[in-house]
Amino acid sequence: MIDLRSDTVTRPTPEMRQAAFDVEVGDDVYGEDESVLKLEETAAQMLGKEAALFVTSGTQGNQIAALTHCNRGDEVLLEASAHLFLYEGASMSALAGVQPRTIEGVRGAMNPQDVRAAIRPDDIHFPETGLICLENTHNKAGGAIVPLENMQAIYDIAREHNIPVHLDGARLFNAVVASGISVKEYAAQADTVQFCLSKGLGAPVGSMITGSADFIRSARKWRKRLGGGLRQVGVIAEPGYVALTQMVDRLAEDHDNARLLAELIEQMAGLRVEGEVDTNIVLVNVADLGLTAEQFLEEVKKEGVLAVPFGPHTVRFVTHFDVSRQDIIDTVDRIMNVSRTCV
Amino acid sequence: MIDLRSDTVTRPTPEMRQAAFDVEVGDDVYGEDESVLKLEETAAQMLGKEAALFVTSGTQGNQIAALTHCNRGDEVLLEASAHLFLYEGASMSALAGVQPRTIEGVRGAMNPQDVRAAIRPDDIHFPETGLICLENTHNKAGGAIVPLENMQAIYDIAREHNIPVHLDGARLFNAVVASGISVKEYAAQADTVQFCLSKGLGAPVGSMITGSADFIRSARKWRKRLGGGLRQVGVIAEPGYVALTQMVDRLAEDHDNARLLAELIEQMAGLRVEGEVDTNIVLVNVADLGLTAEQFLEEVKKEGVLAVPFGPHTVRFVTHFDVSRQDIIDTVDRIMNVSRTCV
Amino acid sequence: MIDLRSDTVTRPTPEMRQAAFDVEVGDDVYGEDESVLKLEETAAQMLGKEAALFVTSGTQGNQIAALTHCNRGDEVLLEASAHLFLYEGASMSALAGVQPRTIEGVRGAMNPQDVRAAIRPDDIHFPETGLICLENTHNKAGGAIVPLENMQAIYDIAREHNIPVHLDGARLFNAVVASGISVKEYAAQADTVQFCLSKGLGAPVGSMITGSADFIRSARKWRKRLGGGLRQVGVIAEPGYVALTQMVDRLAEDHDNARLLAELIEQMAGLRVEGEVDTNIVLVNVADLGLTAEQFLEEVKKEGVLAVPFGPHTVRFVTHFDVSRQDIIDTVDRIMNVSRTCV
Amino acid sequence: MIDLRSDTVTRPTPEMRQAAFDVEVGDDVYGEDESVLKLEETAAQMLGKEAALFVTSGTQGNQIAALTHCNRGDEVLLEASAHLFLYEGASMSALAGVQPRTIEGVRGAMNPQDVRAAIRPDDIHFPETGLICLENTHNKAGGAIVPLENMQAIYDIAREHNIPVHLDGARLFNAVVASGISVKEYAAQADTVQFCLSKGLGAPVGSMITGSADFIRSARKWRKRLGGGLRQVGVIAEPGYVALTQMVDRLAEDHDNARLLAELIEQMAGLRVEGEVDTNIVLVNVADLGLTAEQFLEEVKKEGVLAVPFGPHTVRFVTHFDVSRQDIIDTVDRIMNVSRTCV
Repeated sequence: MIDLRSDTVTRPTPEMRQAAFDVEVGDDVYGEDESVLKLEETAAQMLGKEAALFVTSGTQGNQIAALTHCNRGDEVLLEASAHLFLYEGASMSALAGVQPRTIEGVRGAMNPQDVRAAIRPDDIHFPETGLICLENTHNKAGGAIVPLENMQAIYDIAREHNIPVHLDGARLFNAVVASGISVKEYAAQADTVQFCLSKGLGAPVGSMITGSADFIRSARKWRKRLGGGLRQVGVIAEPGYVALTQMVDRLAEDHDNARLLAELIEQMAGLRVEGEVDTNIVLVNVADLGLTAEQFLEEVKKEGVLAVPFGPHTVRFVTHFDVSRQDIIDTVDRIMNVSRTCV
Repeated sequence: MIDLRSDTVTRPTPEMRQAAFDVEVGDDVYGEDESVLKLEETAAQMLGKEAALFVTSGTQGNQIAALTHCNRGDEVLLEASAHLFLYEGASMSALAGVQPRTIEGVRGAMNPQDVRAAIRPDDIHFPETGLICLENTHNKAGGAIVPLENMQAIYDIAREHNIPVHLDGARLFNAVVASGISVKEYAAQADTVQFCLSKGLGAPVGSMITGSADFIRSARKWRKRLGGGLRQVGVIAEPGYVALTQMVDRLAEDHDNARLLAELIEQMAGLRVEGEVDTNIVLVNVADLGLTAEQFLEEVKKEGVLAVPFGPHTVRFVTHFDVSRQDIIDTVDRIMNVSRTCV
Repeated sequence: MIDLRSDTVTRPTPEMRQAAFDVEVGDDVYGEDESVLKLEETAAQMLGKEAALFVTSGTQGNQIAALTHCNRGDEVLLEASAHLFLYEGASMSALAGVQPRTIEGVRGAMNPQDVRAAIRPDDIHFPETGLICLENTHNKAGGAIVPLENMQAIYDIAREHNIPVHLDGARLFNAVVASGISVKEYAAQADTVQFCLSKGLGAPVGSMITGSADFIRSARKWRKRLGGGLRQVGVIAEPGYVALTQMVDRLAEDHDNARLLAELIEQMAGLRVEGEVDTNIVLVNVADLGLTAEQFLEEVKKEGVLAVPFGPHTVRFVTHFDVSRQDIIDTVDRIMNVSRTCV
Repeated sequence: MIDLRSDTVTRPTPEMRQAAFDVEVGDDVYGEDESVLKLEETAAQMLGKEAALFVTSGTQGNQIAALTHCNRGDEVLLEASAHLFLYEGASMSALAGVQPRTIEGVRGAMNPQDVRAAIRPDDIHFPETGLICLENTHNKAGGAIVPLENMQAIYDIAREHNIPVHLDGARLFNAVVASGISVKEYAAQADTVQFCLSKGLGAPVGSMITGSADFIRSARKWRKRLGGGLRQVGVIAEPGYVALTQMVDRLAEDHDNARLLAELIEQMAGLRVEGEVDTNIVLVNVADLGLTAEQFLEEVKKEGVLAVPFGPHTVRFVTHFDVSRQDIIDTVDRIMNVSRTCV
């Protein structure tokens, strides 16, 4: 079975397992786990922020950002298909009591003028605009890289209005590797940044949020309230450190594989790649096969390929550490078995 | 000064004042105010619902609907410029902990297929769709009447999925009078309906929510939690009863006045009526005068006309009980003084 | 029927009705109702605060205080039988997301050292102490007056720790009249004060919250979110103004009547007055009659007296404007009819 | 340094490290991590519940219980010094919007009649009683075992009123081992049970919640909303499985060590053991040394002993896997060095 559902399925590397086996742990609720302290310091330095905090998932990092930045009753601006809006169980409203206000973007990038227009003026009827969220790379837009200048323009507007900016950078390092722009430059366009250790970087569990020392102090208490204050966290922090320090550069392979997959699929009758392939995600439209996404997925599963639906006729393939160039070629063969019977 | 900012500015009629003066009151927290009981029974009967509850504002009625229908973490579908989304301080998220999901409509009417597509399937990442909100007439769409068939189509979809529907009918009686469709027919397309006594109907304070007896029982406790449980409420309920039983038919005059205003404005250089005038709201675009909405409003205020901005170049005029046909003619004269100097 | 259930049952006086009839109203959401502006200014001046806000109930005033003072996740210290804790539907937690922490008091007064001990130190496991609430007179403690020095001692501790203090003064004017201490002195022991127009002062509807100008500005938006932003509010604000300016001194009569009731009841076999009678509330223990509070109330109701249960064997009587000295004497006669058959 | 601050400081055993190293992981958000499925099934079976869920901490388990059992605005009954009330950052109110109502217990056990009296009757002023929480062993009461009959009596009352019961069993297995009562019998006195893998059982991270299949289905979504949905969770679930299946019986040693510590301390001048020592916690009063808890802890730390303050003059010592009988004897010697200089 070739598993292209998500880069979350990556298994820990031998180095990560060994690191977890050897780690000297402590109790992180007492601030005594050296591994997690090292990981947090490293993450903060890499992103050019004062401090960082280990959290158990990207969702937890994003929710803590909303809880820490916002007052209940605030409004949060974000792109209409942001992960935070679509895939986090309405948690932002449930927990932080804030209202998302969505702006339709182009390949994940909101028009800065739309952002400006959506900021609420002072009026008794209006919530305050309490946060602007960006996402880079943008999952629903097919792993699209949001241009640095777009982020800069939005951050400028945000600062004009004293509104904090949070970057959901679950796959930020994919943008870094693909664009050649440093992670510091991206991170400089937001007050706080969340990125995942557990997607393309291959760690079994965990994400980081980074920001000012003050922000992280408050975030730490919200993490505790969500039940994310762990004990001998070194057993996952140490593999996370391996992920962060050894696995970034190899994301380039995933991007190569994604491009290869896209090129080969483009040549097949009945299949069409949607949009560009910037990083490790390929969106494929299967409508011309006369199949829904669900039907298509059922068929390719029989052939030994897993992916996920991303719209009525859209399928998402994600390349990652556990998928080789040969797997991509095999994937295309298997898909061809399906498309052949349809067209 | 001719005040066309909103039909909320209407002053109580002599009949309402007299009714308040004469009313035999009781303590409604003990369920002993006969006026409010009569008003609630009348409202329920008129709308064809089992029960009704007096609340102090449309916002309170809408918020109680969200609190009563939804669990925290639910998603609420509503039109992108719904009052509930734009003008209620993000209260739905702040108090009920629910996430609004907006659908761009046409003249306030959402495409039923868009509604269907937005209903969340069962998935660990997704909130449940806990409520669908309609608004009729639709304020931001210029008092547009949402067609009964549109409401029916959406309600059919909602029932298929066991999702309750709430109608923000702040100005529902304007739709009733203008369309000739009975209020019962409109109300039958939703589980719960809120309508205002204090807008075109002229009562000083108050709105009603109507629904099943079970719903109203729960709503009553949420009203108490919001601080809307009043004591000798008859002093406002009795004028509300006058409003509901004597003031509905006269909304036709407001509609005539609005159409007259629109026709006369259409003839002026530099001004353009946006959309149709279905009821008592006229949206006017002032861009061709070379003025922003705010600048235009400042100028007409000097001439003795009040209205409100509704977009960068859009101005909203609302006709109501305290504005006569002659006032409309005077309004047009005064606006002409402004437009003349611009064009 | 002599109604001693609560001073909330008082009916508006002829002066109040006339004031409502004559009032020149405006739309308060636009800040144009002169009556409510006058009432708010008067209330602020009387209490020595910068500003005031009209709200529709004591519960709404208290909830707005919690919403405005606190962040979600804060802890609120208050007496164990405070109205805010027992009788407001857990609204403070439901809406503001704060945790009440109760302190057992004596006749409504918390021991300042208990308050000090309950303030949370800085620790990752602890919420911040975000508010201290006082109640004076204290309803559940039988209308007890909380001593000014007790309030001062607690306020001193609060200021040491930068914790705001809110006074639930639903019946604050009863304390003022009974103690001879000015309302300004009481109000000086708290950052914000809520008091009711609709209890002993006899207004049909409404309460006031007072505090700093900044606080009231934020409170106004929370009021809107709760649906407490009214339109031609003058129809209730003007009677409220009558209540505040003409009805305070006459509370002394209610206190006289309460004391008379207590004295006469003390002389009856099988009945015992619980605690002192400081103001207009009399708590009576009926255990020695061999009746529960509910059974006793059923019996006296047949005789034409209404009161409410306040414990398994405790009944609360409240004197007010609609109860005369003669009514008290009649009440005692009617109760005697009941006690005679029991003992 | 002998660390008696908490049993949370235990380090993973070699078996746990090996298990983590060898584990075949999967993505638990897709339900494909065999380790966690095995752990959940084992936990459910051991406790006699239909299903179980792995969570990252006891706090997360307790909060998910509140979120899943309760509606916002409900009231939760729990003992006055319950962990859920004192040490979880007011999270229950912040996230679930529920109000805690505390009942003073004796050694952690609430009087069932007090629980019955605190259940709210149906009244417009009252929240619904939505949950009763028990804690066993009771941390703040010094690791006291709450008697099974006490739990039964409360559960009977709860069922009479259709109120769910949640057991915070962070240290439930200590009660099991010390009392000889099976975990199934304890678990049968509650609808849902949380217990920690990471305290005395020695796992690095994690807790379990168990309950009905329906409850766990909802709980899973709340876990996702809190950011507790992990990926290759096997790396911590597998050590958790070792903890649950191999470490329970050895808790008896911790209890022996705690008793030894208590006996030796009782013989020292100036120190007094508070209450009984039921399990692995010893509370020691240091007032007679003329020291506060903080001062005492500073002194013993210099001697190489760590513990935590549990009151102005109370210190908590917790025995656990990483503390041997010899460590206890050494601890006593070191404490003696301190007490000698004081008395």
